[in-house]
Amino acid sequence: MPRPQRHVFVCSQQRPPGHPRGSCAAKGASPLLQAFWAELQKRQAFEQVAITYSGCLGPCDGGPNVVVYPEGTLYQGVTTADIPELFDSHLLGGTEVERLKADGATW
Amino acid sequence: MPRPQRHVFVCSQQRPPGHPRGSCAAKGASPLLQAFWAELQKRQAFEQVAITYSGCLGPCDGGPNVVVYPEGTLYQGVTTADIPELFDSHLLGGTEVERLKADGATW
Repeated sequence: MPRPQRHVFVCSQQRPPGHPRGSCAAKGASPLLQAFWAELQKRQAFEQVAITYSGCLGPCDGGPNVVVYPEGTLYQGVTTADIPELFDSHLLGGTEVERLKADGATW
Repeated sequence: MPRPQRHVFVCSQQRPPGHPRGSCAAKGASPLLQAFWAELQKRQAFEQVAITYSGCLGPCDGGPNVVVYPEGTLYQGVTTADIPELFDSHLLGGTEVERLKADGATW
């Protein structure tokens, strides 16, 4: 892919059932990742945005975690319903979605 | 983890043996990732640098691929021998390692 204007990393870390840290996979990261890719396809925004899965981003409690660079914005508790707004506002529009941002103590 | 000053994503994509695209895993991504983590531990640089594995970054031919944000620098053909220089120069020093950067046609 060409160098994207914004690069989204969707934590897809798995852990065994009952693990004390839980995991983003257990919180729905896999369908979330698929929905990000579907939205990218729908908008044909391949020149502007890249979507990549990643390993653990750290604050598992608040997952699913999604980090967007170059801003380094950590979004938490993201659902598939949030994806159109994330594209419109941040990924294509440049304005972070405040209501989904991790608090300052977390990130 | 706290928000890092620099975030390194090491492509760890796997593909079956003989796949026409190859993969970063087949080019040594797993020992490379382990060596990045070992260097982070050695330097106790957890407040400055995060190391995360990722899915495919695109230009598989030149892997192993490593992208560093917030600069969005793509390094290619990275080996474990390059890691101390990457820490000294870029991750802690802020100066990209020119000899490892992907060319402008790739990224």
